[in-house]
Amino acid sequence: MAIVLYTDFGADLYVGQVKAVLVEHAPAVPVIDLLHDAPAFDVGASAHLLAACLSRFAPGTVFLAVVDPGVGMERDAVVVECDGRYLVGPDNGLLSVCAARAHSVRIWSIHWRPAAMSASFHGRDLFAPIAAEIAAKAWPQAQLTDKPALDKMLDAGDAWTIIYIDRYGNACTGIRARSLTHDSALSAGGRRVSYARVFGAAGQREPFWYENSLGLAEVAANRASAAQLLGLTVGDAVSVA
Amino acid sequence: MAIVLYTDFGADLYVGQVKAVLVEHAPAVPVIDLLHDAPAFDVGASAHLLAACLSRFAPGTVFLAVVDPGVGMERDAVVVECDGRYLVGPDNGLLSVCAARAHSVRIWSIHWRPAAMSASFHGRDLFAPIAAEIAAKAWPQAQLTDKPALDKMLDAGDAWTIIYIDRYGNACTGIRARSLTHDSALSAGGRRVSYARVFGAAGQREPFWYENSLGLAEVAANRASAAQLLGLTVGDAVSVA
Amino acid sequence: MAIVLYTDFGADLYVGQVKAVLVEHAPAVPVIDLLHDAPAFDVGASAHLLAACLSRFAPGTVFLAVVDPGVGMERDAVVVECDGRYLVGPDNGLLSVCAARAHSVRIWSIHWRPAAMSASFHGRDLFAPIAAEIAAKAWPQAQLTDKPALDKMLDAGDAWTIIYIDRYGNACTGIRARSLTHDSALSAGGRRVSYARVFGAAGQREPFWYENSLGLAEVAANRASAAQLLGLTVGDAVSVA
Repeated sequence: MAIVLYTDFGADLYVGQVKAVLVEHAPAVPVIDLLHDAPAFDVGASAHLLAACLSRFAPGTVFLAVVDPGVGMERDAVVVECDGRYLVGPDNGLLSVCAARAHSVRIWSIHWRPAAMSASFHGRDLFAPIAAEIAAKAWPQAQLTDKPALDKMLDAGDAWTIIYIDRYGNACTGIRARSLTHDSALSAGGRRVSYARVFGAAGQREPFWYENSLGLAEVAANRASAAQLLGLTVGDAVSVA
Repeated sequence: MAIVLYTDFGADLYVGQVKAVLVEHAPAVPVIDLLHDAPAFDVGASAHLLAACLSRFAPGTVFLAVVDPGVGMERDAVVVECDGRYLVGPDNGLLSVCAARAHSVRIWSIHWRPAAMSASFHGRDLFAPIAAEIAAKAWPQAQLTDKPALDKMLDAGDAWTIIYIDRYGNACTGIRARSLTHDSALSAGGRRVSYARVFGAAGQREPFWYENSLGLAEVAANRASAAQLLGLTVGDAVSVA
Repeated sequence: MAIVLYTDFGADLYVGQVKAVLVEHAPAVPVIDLLHDAPAFDVGASAHLLAACLSRFAPGTVFLAVVDPGVGMERDAVVVECDGRYLVGPDNGLLSVCAARAHSVRIWSIHWRPAAMSASFHGRDLFAPIAAEIAAKAWPQAQLTDKPALDKMLDAGDAWTIIYIDRYGNACTGIRARSLTHDSALSAGGRRVSYARVFGAAGQREPFWYENSLGLAEVAANRASAAQLLGLTVGDAVSVA
């Protein structure tokens, strides 16, 4: 049992305030930072990356998932249960790929609003208290209403784009590697990249793709930044070469 | 109950060593990273940002607050109780804005010195053990002496400067938003910026100011870096336009 | 008792997945992030920095130490006990400086392999479960075999190179400061740098060396980046001037 944070908050300053709320409401539950540099303005990329991570965490885990460029504007706040894991966040598409891929799904609207709610930081003021109560096994009955479906659904098939670039310049796609064979070559940044099993099996500074540890096809280069070599950024299209 | 870290340590390498001390002395107390990129050479900016964060944490919280460019030179080491929250750190002004704004304040000098104390890392060697003992409810009576006042007091009124820039280039000022009205425009980086309630209410790449989630006026831009657009850095002056 | 993470993983995305495994297997054990930007392609530098950190942590601490550019290629996976502290990681030299400097050493090969093991993320799939079991006092007897010595041993004397550069541009060497006297000057980046006790004792922007809080000689500059001033990067040679 843990609370997992998946956000675009970047700096500790915001994460720390969220953790203060979590510690107050669920002092015994460990908190895990999964991501704080989720693609901020690309909810689709963030949604696909989140879906790839989900199964790495045990059932019962509570995800506080906030990539919310429209915070303060109209959109619902929801809890989504996907095969026993709980996701708390905005109904802006972020949770929709998880929901579409789950075998069993339940959705609730969070109709509760805190006495003092900032316009810009619902992660701290609205989502964190709800996530903490769920994690502390105190289901927030009075704060939730059943909801038949999410308002905003994204395409939950493979995303044929770059969805994340890590600090080494490895460029993760939203393509589940099982959709490809090892004979497949990908086209990314105008260049053809073939498959390699591991970094050490590719030539130095030679771009390749491999199945990363989340099961996604990732464009990488041995001891070099694939993103830099190929000029890749989040959102760029990838196709079969 | 938690220990909150507010430092300019930057890298995990230093933070991890502090946490080793905290886990040893107070194994049951959660540790929250609030900030590790506090403005390193601008104690005033760091002091104002800390004061804005303080009330977000429950009474009983212990802050290990270290922005200490003069470490190893002369300055006292202190514990300050502000309305039930404890701050442990250097007496160099960092804790003084918190102290000046609190209704109830007590101050102690830390006269204890560890057997082995590095010249450059009092956060680990001196402040962490004291913070851990306070958090573990083992008040370090023998290590502290009552002190009537801090040696170094900074102006505790609004700071009309940029005190923090986050990874998006949002430029937080030290002006409490309640000092302004929504009709107020600010002048920053030679440009006039008007109020907007939320990011989504401003035009794309258009600088504006809003009340951030700490209650401070913050200069931002929708889907762009305000700091870059306006050439802002920590310490720059801000005024009413 | 804690699990300490020392890796080149960089992003939260990988660290978070490791923590999910640790929380599942050892829910009551605190996890400390010591380093996630260890020099990725310089196992020697990472090995010397790890050895300098080791004694800062209490006996019983379990280190998950993964700097593993050859992951997926041939190399053994090991547990090394050094004076009561446990290190879990690859047998590629990373743990060898710790082992060589310890008074009492035991080594085990991890012959267990998980049912599903990614080619690129042994930190999560192989090392984390083993580290968690050791930390939870459930010695993984059935997974380990005694091993007389590490396959890969590095020179465990002082490393006369830059082994780490922090966010301020301070350049840490692998030279234990007790090998030098305060009269010693170092040559780094083609320039002679003298000793200073603390940052405040050096002139502004003037490079100097001092004994850092890990007991290593570090090239620094007061309110400036020594790495930038002297053009230093990890791996650069340092000598007595």
